[in-house]
Amino acid sequence: MTDQRIPCAVLGATGNVGQRFIQLLERHPWFRPAELVASERSAGRPFREAATWRVDAEMPESVRDLTVRGYDDQLDSPVVFSALPGETAGEIEQRMAREGRAVLTNTSTHRADPDVPLMIAEVNPEHVAAIPIQQARRDWSGFIVANANCSAIHLTLALKPLHAAFGIDSVMVTTLQAISGAGYPGVPSMDIVDNVVPYIGNEEEKLETEPLKMLGQWRDGAFHDADFRLSTTCTRVAVRDGHTESVNIRLRMDASPSDVADAMTRFQAAPQLLELPSAPRRPIVVRNEVNRPQPLLDRETERGMASVVGRIRPCPLMGVKFVVLGHNTIRGAAGASILNAELLKAQDLLPS
Amino acid sequence: MTDQRIPCAVLGATGNVGQRFIQLLERHPWFRPAELVASERSAGRPFREAATWRVDAEMPESVRDLTVRGYDDQLDSPVVFSALPGETAGEIEQRMAREGRAVLTNTSTHRADPDVPLMIAEVNPEHVAAIPIQQARRDWSGFIVANANCSAIHLTLALKPLHAAFGIDSVMVTTLQAISGAGYPGVPSMDIVDNVVPYIGNEEEKLETEPLKMLGQWRDGAFHDADFRLSTTCTRVAVRDGHTESVNIRLRMDASPSDVADAMTRFQAAPQLLELPSAPRRPIVVRNEVNRPQPLLDRETERGMASVVGRIRPCPLMGVKFVVLGHNTIRGAAGASILNAELLKAQDLLPS
Amino acid sequence: MTDQRIPCAVLGATGNVGQRFIQLLERHPWFRPAELVASERSAGRPFREAATWRVDAEMPESVRDLTVRGYDDQLDSPVVFSALPGETAGEIEQRMAREGRAVLTNTSTHRADPDVPLMIAEVNPEHVAAIPIQQARRDWSGFIVANANCSAIHLTLALKPLHAAFGIDSVMVTTLQAISGAGYPGVPSMDIVDNVVPYIGNEEEKLETEPLKMLGQWRDGAFHDADFRLSTTCTRVAVRDGHTESVNIRLRMDASPSDVADAMTRFQAAPQLLELPSAPRRPIVVRNEVNRPQPLLDRETERGMASVVGRIRPCPLMGVKFVVLGHNTIRGAAGASILNAELLKAQDLLPS
Amino acid sequence: MTDQRIPCAVLGATGNVGQRFIQLLERHPWFRPAELVASERSAGRPFREAATWRVDAEMPESVRDLTVRGYDDQLDSPVVFSALPGETAGEIEQRMAREGRAVLTNTSTHRADPDVPLMIAEVNPEHVAAIPIQQARRDWSGFIVANANCSAIHLTLALKPLHAAFGIDSVMVTTLQAISGAGYPGVPSMDIVDNVVPYIGNEEEKLETEPLKMLGQWRDGAFHDADFRLSTTCTRVAVRDGHTESVNIRLRMDASPSDVADAMTRFQAAPQLLELPSAPRRPIVVRNEVNRPQPLLDRETERGMASVVGRIRPCPLMGVKFVVLGHNTIRGAAGASILNAELLKAQDLLPS
Repeated sequence: MTDQRIPCAVLGATGNVGQRFIQLLERHPWFRPAELVASERSAGRPFREAATWRVDAEMPESVRDLTVRGYDDQLDSPVVFSALPGETAGEIEQRMAREGRAVLTNTSTHRADPDVPLMIAEVNPEHVAAIPIQQARRDWSGFIVANANCSAIHLTLALKPLHAAFGIDSVMVTTLQAISGAGYPGVPSMDIVDNVVPYIGNEEEKLETEPLKMLGQWRDGAFHDADFRLSTTCTRVAVRDGHTESVNIRLRMDASPSDVADAMTRFQAAPQLLELPSAPRRPIVVRNEVNRPQPLLDRETERGMASVVGRIRPCPLMGVKFVVLGHNTIRGAAGASILNAELLKAQDLLPS
Repeated sequence: MTDQRIPCAVLGATGNVGQRFIQLLERHPWFRPAELVASERSAGRPFREAATWRVDAEMPESVRDLTVRGYDDQLDSPVVFSALPGETAGEIEQRMAREGRAVLTNTSTHRADPDVPLMIAEVNPEHVAAIPIQQARRDWSGFIVANANCSAIHLTLALKPLHAAFGIDSVMVTTLQAISGAGYPGVPSMDIVDNVVPYIGNEEEKLETEPLKMLGQWRDGAFHDADFRLSTTCTRVAVRDGHTESVNIRLRMDASPSDVADAMTRFQAAPQLLELPSAPRRPIVVRNEVNRPQPLLDRETERGMASVVGRIRPCPLMGVKFVVLGHNTIRGAAGASILNAELLKAQDLLPS
Repeated sequence: MTDQRIPCAVLGATGNVGQRFIQLLERHPWFRPAELVASERSAGRPFREAATWRVDAEMPESVRDLTVRGYDDQLDSPVVFSALPGETAGEIEQRMAREGRAVLTNTSTHRADPDVPLMIAEVNPEHVAAIPIQQARRDWSGFIVANANCSAIHLTLALKPLHAAFGIDSVMVTTLQAISGAGYPGVPSMDIVDNVVPYIGNEEEKLETEPLKMLGQWRDGAFHDADFRLSTTCTRVAVRDGHTESVNIRLRMDASPSDVADAMTRFQAAPQLLELPSAPRRPIVVRNEVNRPQPLLDRETERGMASVVGRIRPCPLMGVKFVVLGHNTIRGAAGASILNAELLKAQDLLPS
Repeated sequence: MTDQRIPCAVLGATGNVGQRFIQLLERHPWFRPAELVASERSAGRPFREAATWRVDAEMPESVRDLTVRGYDDQLDSPVVFSALPGETAGEIEQRMAREGRAVLTNTSTHRADPDVPLMIAEVNPEHVAAIPIQQARRDWSGFIVANANCSAIHLTLALKPLHAAFGIDSVMVTTLQAISGAGYPGVPSMDIVDNVVPYIGNEEEKLETEPLKMLGQWRDGAFHDADFRLSTTCTRVAVRDGHTESVNIRLRMDASPSDVADAMTRFQAAPQLLELPSAPRRPIVVRNEVNRPQPLLDRETERGMASVVGRIRPCPLMGVKFVVLGHNTIRGAAGASILNAELLKAQDLLPS
């Protein structure tokens, strides 16, 4: 019996997020990892030799013998998942889109483009309306859909039902981010064992802008940012996976902590209604224990696809505060791109 | 040659902060650790047997053979440093004060008392004016001076020059606190290796109130809290020593980040002017590197007695934000009490 | 449809290993966690209140509302899994056996008893022959079967095929053990963050004797230890789960590293032949990468039920050396007891 | 008053060990860090810009404004300390020696050379006798003296008095090595948080050969290795500084654990007798606590210049076993080179 699943390419397949893409696609009911693309150093070699598998004990059998493709190789896959480093992503992803492929990218390069949806499947699925404009403007038969920075995804998921129900005036965030967010080799152990690094390059800029695009509107052929302000401080801590975010929020309408908890708990969106394969049953899980969420205990919630919120309580300054946590390389990266692809497929928007 | 230094008692001598007291007193020019007091389990045994020394490699020679005193034993020392657990501290510290001793306590029990100074030597030395009232009201010949919670001390030190120069309207804080703050055995390793715990019991309450007393005024026989509001979230991270705090602040007067940096850098107070033995030359050290302060690199600044501030920059919501870090068991606990004692001695307020 | 599975009691249900028992039994095809037993502090309360669930995010639904039983309560379960602390285990486990139950214990109390099998299902299943003697001597209708210390289990599994094929003359081991091995709260974080503790109480004694009983024979109504010597050094490192052991071995017959690897790889025993539910397909997994096994990557191999061996190479002093790693609370504790129970059931040796 | 200290160059000044050299030389009574040499990327820039200071909070004032020299620049310093990466060290160090300088190197390149002393000041100071041969053979006016690998230094220090008193037959070692041993960026945090890596490239080869050269003899114009065998397994653990080594030893003569402890405790050598500035008062410190040495508590013993030994006890297989620990970048690297230089100076063997 042949594999009927849609063949997909993974760009940047040897890295942390690339491996996560492969791991998640390997057992995916709709997609399969068919072409693995990496830099010149790896191209031409079997994947088992080109990559050191790090996301779990064993590289999946199905990709061990795939020959790694180079960035310039012609691909066959109609769907492309990208985990390319920022500096090389732009041109390659654009070429893939020009060639008619759907490019679901985790890279920051096109996130702010005025015709590229920056999408969380539960938050702003209507932004796919930008795709035809993107294709028309750029004369592409394919397209690019980006997902946001890992911290921005979990923050935005948590904000979405509050934005919808109460309106958001302003948001203050301090993050405690996991080391896997920096890729591999990423953070040197000398920098983080018995330490905190209170700065992550470009992270605060992303976290202060991306939620506004995602919670904004596509209207009259353009994205209109949501109308609130963010202030963020991003730090790195000695945690393997799972970003923790301390959030204070001022809402436009009165809302008690229990109103906030209710809105989050009840939140359901297209991926849940469509029962997409990667969709978490509960996109936001609210915990009531006083000391949760914790990365160790909660990052795998809903197979790493949920944002877990706890400590919802009054903020003397802004009204409400809470802590949100989520898996940064699953829902915060590879899983988010795959869920976006599922949503596109359910809408018949994927090339084949 | 006899030791002319003032004999001091250390209450709770076998614990984390108790050992820090001993370590700091051991080479102190004015004080010496003469009487070590601990619970029944340790009393009567030589200190070398009663305590497992953990602050560095070797228990100081001078205390190895001291017999540990029990809580009910009669002491000779006119000065008492207390690191007692909260539940046992009250009665014991009160008895010591009644007996005419100066009790410098690190415990939370009396911090909020309306006649007990909650003091940081650089911040509110004028609060010693409450001592005669305390003595009169309680009919004590000695007295109690408390120091604040470890996170509150470093936050308040950083706020003091801003409060003085620009006025404070409101402060938002998320802390990343070290495991030593929980004492020994304290935080189980199973709770913190590869993890963050986003909650510390009673910590937020302390951090939202103690700074207001310290930055407030003693006037007409009573403490008057400073008139601003705080909102805090306290988390625990896998760092041995050094609390990191992400701070956002709204000032009453306009102040740029460089104004803030200048005010902090220039800050000097009584301990510096009097050149007290434990006084840091610079109580607040401002660092300009984009990724500082870090616990590992900065916690020992000024022998652990400084608050180190970095990342001073505009906050889109509140005006200014920065990160402050400090050693939680030196300036945040034992060192703070000792500096308070030095200030009292310099003012001839210690019994002898 | 009623649950046809055999109801089991878990002694010490609130602890680390107790929770692991519950987690593994919860989806077990033959057994179910029916009675949860803990100390007086927990007895009488619903399990969801008595225990803080720590092995993953959510306490299983099926045990949340069970009322915790006390040590003296009368139980209904014919099968008892014990994770009691050593000091309390003896009498309770004996009473359970006297009452006709099968007690599968993880506790050290009875391990060295001359009529109690110390069993690894793949290593010495024939030691069940001691059970009738145990019952006759002690006038019990039930019985106790113990499993070994976590480090001893993985070492012994790795040694078994070598003992069988080549004979063992002597074994030298240095362990690097995970913090979960000490239970909860267990190792204080102050003792292990940025540290190694080169000593674990009683661990070396166990590791130098238990393998000899398990690799020895039951003959003429008595256990006869295997005839080789062990020397061990046990250390604790900042790893959550997974004990790593550096092993040097002198065999009685010549064997090259590849002979050793072959013997280990080919090793199959009763649990594999009987396809017991918890049996790893491969009890020993040999890895060829130069830097494996690693706790993080390899501890979950075969659902935590395998011993993973790597770095098999010549030892200039003893002949062969290698590194073995295994999950200490699954195959090293709860999983080992459950596999023992499965083997007994397959032989119709469980009461019902 | 001018600085009368001997100007020294530090090769590889921006790295981990290079910075340690600078830190130790900065307050040295005889030497001063005068010329800082690094790769092209840093050359020509002020040191404060070329290097990110990581060994403590503040780069020493005296080196901040030094212009970093390139590898090809002509130096003035008669004494050169080298922390160059292995691949670049050879040619550069040789040129330095040819130019008449004393090169004290921490790099592995020349360690096995038949005319280069591999020296620990307390262990084999007589190996300086090779210097004239080295100079004659190579036609150099200067010379190279190497120090050993960090693990080898502490092992050899611990073995020296046993070799002298009892003779060594064979040694078995498993190490638990700190991350700083791999330099910076070195070990990725993703590889070591919640993990052990049971392999360090080339480390076992060094640890199995270097002690033999150091404990061997210089005789008839050649080094003769000590006549015993070593077997080693080297692992990396999540410790910042301080290598722990589990050692089993067979001695040629009978020696009880207390004989071993006595020999170690009594050990004194040339650096102690000459009271060299960096010499530890006690080169080997024996601790009696059952759970020592620990990296966190013991690595700074004697300012990081001692080897700390504990758990001396009988080994059922080899006679004696113990644990030795030492600071890997002080006594295990920079401090060892500096002590070697001091010994040479005390013997008038340094150029000036």
